[in-house]
Amino acid sequence: MTAHTTHGNALQANFDVDYVICYRFQDTDKEKAQAGFEKLIRALTDVGLATAVRPGDDCSVLVFVKMYSEGHLTGEIYRSRVKDWLHGVRAAEPDKETQSSLSKEPAVESERLRLVYARITDPSVEGGAGITPKQGEWKNVESVFALHDHTFNKEWIKKWSTSSTLTLEDLDDIRNKFGEKVAFYFAFLQTYFAFLLFPALFGFSCWVLLGYFSPIYAIVNGLWCIVFVEYWKHQEKDLAVRWGVRGVSAIETIRASFRPEKEEKDPVTGEMVKIFPATKRFSRQVLQLPFAILASAALGSIIATCFAIEIFITEVYNGPFKSVLVFLPTGLLTILQPTILALLTAIARKLNDLENYETNDSYEAAMTQKIFVLNFITSYLPIILTAFVYVPFGSLLVPYLDVFSLTVKPFAEHEKQLQVPQSGFTINPDRLRKQVIYFTVTAQIVNLGMEVVLPYVKRRGFNKYKEIKSERAAKKGGATPSLSINDIPEESAFLTRVRNEAELDHYDVTDDLREMCIQFGYLALFSVVWPLTAVSFLINDWLELRTDAIKICIEMQRPIPWRADSIGPWLDSLSFLSWFGSITSAALVYMFSGDSMGPSGTPQSIKGWVLLLIIFFSEHIYLVVRLAVSTVLAKMESPGLAKERKERYLVRKRYLEESLGQEAKAGNAPITTTDQQSQPEKITRKSLEDEAREASLREAKPGEHFWARQRGWRETLQVGADLIAKSAPSESKKDQ
Amino acid sequence: MTAHTTHGNALQANFDVDYVICYRFQDTDKEKAQAGFEKLIRALTDVGLATAVRPGDDCSVLVFVKMYSEGHLTGEIYRSRVKDWLHGVRAAEPDKETQSSLSKEPAVESERLRLVYARITDPSVEGGAGITPKQGEWKNVESVFALHDHTFNKEWIKKWSTSSTLTLEDLDDIRNKFGEKVAFYFAFLQTYFAFLLFPALFGFSCWVLLGYFSPIYAIVNGLWCIVFVEYWKHQEKDLAVRWGVRGVSAIETIRASFRPEKEEKDPVTGEMVKIFPATKRFSRQVLQLPFAILASAALGSIIATCFAIEIFITEVYNGPFKSVLVFLPTGLLTILQPTILALLTAIARKLNDLENYETNDSYEAAMTQKIFVLNFITSYLPIILTAFVYVPFGSLLVPYLDVFSLTVKPFAEHEKQLQVPQSGFTINPDRLRKQVIYFTVTAQIVNLGMEVVLPYVKRRGFNKYKEIKSERAAKKGGATPSLSINDIPEESAFLTRVRNEAELDHYDVTDDLREMCIQFGYLALFSVVWPLTAVSFLINDWLELRTDAIKICIEMQRPIPWRADSIGPWLDSLSFLSWFGSITSAALVYMFSGDSMGPSGTPQSIKGWVLLLIIFFSEHIYLVVRLAVSTVLAKMESPGLAKERKERYLVRKRYLEESLGQEAKAGNAPITTTDQQSQPEKITRKSLEDEAREASLREAKPGEHFWARQRGWRETLQVGADLIAKSAPSESKKDQ
Repeated sequence: MTAHTTHGNALQANFDVDYVICYRFQDTDKEKAQAGFEKLIRALTDVGLATAVRPGDDCSVLVFVKMYSEGHLTGEIYRSRVKDWLHGVRAAEPDKETQSSLSKEPAVESERLRLVYARITDPSVEGGAGITPKQGEWKNVESVFALHDHTFNKEWIKKWSTSSTLTLEDLDDIRNKFGEKVAFYFAFLQTYFAFLLFPALFGFSCWVLLGYFSPIYAIVNGLWCIVFVEYWKHQEKDLAVRWGVRGVSAIETIRASFRPEKEEKDPVTGEMVKIFPATKRFSRQVLQLPFAILASAALGSIIATCFAIEIFITEVYNGPFKSVLVFLPTGLLTILQPTILALLTAIARKLNDLENYETNDSYEAAMTQKIFVLNFITSYLPIILTAFVYVPFGSLLVPYLDVFSLTVKPFAEHEKQLQVPQSGFTINPDRLRKQVIYFTVTAQIVNLGMEVVLPYVKRRGFNKYKEIKSERAAKKGGATPSLSINDIPEESAFLTRVRNEAELDHYDVTDDLREMCIQFGYLALFSVVWPLTAVSFLINDWLELRTDAIKICIEMQRPIPWRADSIGPWLDSLSFLSWFGSITSAALVYMFSGDSMGPSGTPQSIKGWVLLLIIFFSEHIYLVVRLAVSTVLAKMESPGLAKERKERYLVRKRYLEESLGQEAKAGNAPITTTDQQSQPEKITRKSLEDEAREASLREAKPGEHFWARQRGWRETLQVGADLIAKSAPSESKKDQ
Repeated sequence: MTAHTTHGNALQANFDVDYVICYRFQDTDKEKAQAGFEKLIRALTDVGLATAVRPGDDCSVLVFVKMYSEGHLTGEIYRSRVKDWLHGVRAAEPDKETQSSLSKEPAVESERLRLVYARITDPSVEGGAGITPKQGEWKNVESVFALHDHTFNKEWIKKWSTSSTLTLEDLDDIRNKFGEKVAFYFAFLQTYFAFLLFPALFGFSCWVLLGYFSPIYAIVNGLWCIVFVEYWKHQEKDLAVRWGVRGVSAIETIRASFRPEKEEKDPVTGEMVKIFPATKRFSRQVLQLPFAILASAALGSIIATCFAIEIFITEVYNGPFKSVLVFLPTGLLTILQPTILALLTAIARKLNDLENYETNDSYEAAMTQKIFVLNFITSYLPIILTAFVYVPFGSLLVPYLDVFSLTVKPFAEHEKQLQVPQSGFTINPDRLRKQVIYFTVTAQIVNLGMEVVLPYVKRRGFNKYKEIKSERAAKKGGATPSLSINDIPEESAFLTRVRNEAELDHYDVTDDLREMCIQFGYLALFSVVWPLTAVSFLINDWLELRTDAIKICIEMQRPIPWRADSIGPWLDSLSFLSWFGSITSAALVYMFSGDSMGPSGTPQSIKGWVLLLIIFFSEHIYLVVRLAVSTVLAKMESPGLAKERKERYLVRKRYLEESLGQEAKAGNAPITTTDQQSQPEKITRKSLEDEAREASLREAKPGEHFWARQRGWRETLQVGADLIAKSAPSESKKDQ
């Protein structure tokens, strides 16, 4: 950061560069590299992109890309807006005059960057250059990234340090700079943070007044989970309308790595479409089941084993080195879990690739599900084991733990230290709470540290390494003099910055969303164990909001401004966790309420049917309340929805005025009783003759005779009045 | 029916009449009646309707109504279609040329009748005459009804007697004649009937091979329920698209009896809207809770009391008249239940009126919910009581039944006959099955009979009564001679028919739908008790399909062709019943499986926690499977959805060709590498000077310098190739 500020003003301009493509040819022949480079430039030029090249670091060149002209950009924006309108994302059709349409609603930075990115990466049938970094023929293209807007970033970070909440306008700024996907994350984080105030306050009060495992806390917490999730659903829709992206997930572009099985003519539209049969995909999706079992078994057995060893050491073993050996299982878990998790994640990604989704959205949704399963196991299983296995069944299970005596045998002095005390073994009642505190405080702090500090250290280290390397190279007078010394002075600072940004990691908002969802899970599932959970999260998220901003601005390449109309499948995860919370909270309250010691290792004190009945009612009351809350929220009108309604109303009004107004003028106005002042025709011999003649001319239509008998409404009136007079009510009553 | 056919051909023409308004003035003064009549005719004429009047039966006149001209109708149809398009119901905008739009897609009868009906009944702000039968100023307007198309009806009924299933085209015919709402009912009935084949066959096999309470049957039945409900959801959407009514429930017209609290300017659209605050409505909706409790208590206590008396008499009492007294509770229930049900329904309607809904849809949805609660109690509570109270707790409860000894005391000869046997009391294990058979066979037959035979008898009786009355009047030479003797001969048959139709009842499709939903409930909830349930229903529904057709054609006035895009809130009822079935079936199987005797009156043999655990798993497996089935079905493309997709595709294609094609021609085509064959400029002293001069002219824009350094893609290519050559990979490897 300091390195940047010294360069001063020059940094603030990005020289109109939209994207930088880093072309690296370290492991390629000179000729091949040159051919590949030519292909790249031709591909970019072919789709109307202007290019410029500058030397990059260490066997790479940086290709700078922008739209060839304003006109190209304007056309692209207009086309994209028309497409949105046709897919129902925009209520109003954009003006046909491109320029006036743009001046009415100018394109924001994220819109421009999104469209340019689409030009670079879309397949050629969609009008793009089809460049897919690191894949296939473009394996030399290391990355395609936009340049940070440092003025904005600096201001943004400054704002964070002074203000406490994100306003809607702040969210708009984020959206305009980083796109809707990132903006939705920040909106979610902000909403979650604001909502956390209540359980933090209430949890604190409960902690002081009611202690642990309070049924009141459990009920209020469950209600809060419902309101939060349902409110966010509502809020999400509102923001989607505000940013004009509602339903945008329906506009799908084919994933670059989608491998169609065949190309067929769509029987409906007649277009050629690439097809991968759904049945085939389904047969592959079925593999998720063995995968889930494998993952649960692998992670579950590691967690359970380490858990059992830990209990054995802490509560059975009483030989020497106990204070040190206690850390053995934790160490084991710390080493094994990430390894296996990484392995499983790799398998999950392979599986997901195998499932061969057509669109990025469906690919990501499927991946999210798999990641959620893995995270669910690693995050919640330890606590579930303690609460629902160790505490109720501890006394029964601990005697079997001597199989783990092997792990500490070398340290034991005599057999007795490894034997389970025959009587008097008591479970550790604090264990559950300590574990919850570990996951909701310690782990969160560690995690935050890892997220911010580690990349910083890594980056610093890498820079140092490069410096040393280039110094050494300079001393040797080697063949790769730093290319940057040839930079034109006025570009030098800019190019240094670009070279630095090229080294940064990609930002994936999914990771941050996952983190928040898992955090929400602790609150929904286990906060009844320790009501201060929300207080810890409140503090953590205050920092999280800020560190994430810093991370995006400094630690990472500027994210591609993807569009999104929600936080995607994570919403389902939130709903699921809040549902699951209604089960665990009820069970925890029943089992531990009172002395908060729980069943103390013996299952006798729990009545199975009472426990299950409580769970049953808790869950069903939860579902009913959720339905009620979502019904009430659906009736609330929010600014975004009001805006949408207004737009749709205006469209309708304009259209109706345009087309139906003329229709009405054209003479279809109803014949009113006041218009038609003519008296009923006198029935003369002449008129009857005419009528008869007319009727005979047009035989066969009985309706005409019928209607012709009373001509005009006045005749009808007269006949009707006569009929009424003939059968007056007073007379008819006499008859009854 | 026979009376009609004798009249022959004349019946087949409706004389172009769209609607008949029956104006009755029995209890009104002559002058008032005449004034009211004039008002009616004026109102109709004002909105472009042609009228003709003829005498009706017994102090009434019949006003015949049709659209004033074809042009009026065409305009109305066009307007309605444009409105549909603007609300997203139609994919394609109707052609602006009204005539061509109509010839492309001619209006069907139900469309015409719907629009004419709207003209008659819509409030004046919507362009209608605002006639609300039997209400307020229109209390003399007894009914507004369309005339049956007897040719179609006859053919339809004939078809029924020969073919076994309704094809899609048959459903289209029903839709074209009676509107989408009725068509959806028949589509549902047909789908349900077709689906019933499977559980009927499977149930029969289970009955033969596995006996009662088979877990296999329960699982397959649960799965069938899921597939049926989810398939219907899918089918419903498909039909809605086929009939062009998808999303039509979004086009809402204000209910005539809606009483707004105030009129306010909508802050969004600026229109004046009538408002009834949602909070006030909510405070009234809260009354549903005490109502539900009241209804459950009232109906529940009656059912439980009669149930207890019955058990007392059949299983405790052993005095004289036992065989007769056994019918006492049934008789009691038969008298009391309909009375209380009618009372509760009236209260429900009052409540619903009080809730003051804005639209007919929301009014009906709310009413449906209330009716469903009432029907749920009366239909399923008796069986639930037997299965979950009598069978498990019978032995414990029966001793307390001697409070009911009062009911039979007069008949008992000595006290002993009234005493519960101290030991050896066994519950009747057949009771549950017999009850299920009663509800699924006997009650269905009785119901079918009531539905068809009763109205027929009633109508016959009423006609007879009228005949006798008019004969007597003729003999007396009374003041009300039958007006029909003055009919013109060629109209006579037609008018007789219209007078008959005026006497018929209104058809309400909700009743029929309710009946089917409740029937489905027996299958979902209790068919595990008696697997032949579906066989009975299959036979019943075969008849139901036919009797309903006859009912609509003969017993009832022609229904107003309302539009609908689904079977409405009954779908939720179906989902709920199928969900609830996953709980009851699991419980029944656990409790009764094996000897199918159940716990024989003592709760000891049931393990509470096992029962609850089974329910828990059954319910959650049900929910997961339902999610899976609906996901798979959502991926299936049906003809209707394909049609919609095609329409939307064509709209998009046309638009894109129209507006974007021109855009592309206008010169925004990309500059391709092949277009621009010029060589890179030679860098001469002159060109550098030019560049410098140009640059100095336009200071302050660093981007221009940056981009100007490589002009055109060929220069970029050259520079890039040089850069690559300078840092060739072979050399750089040496350095590493």
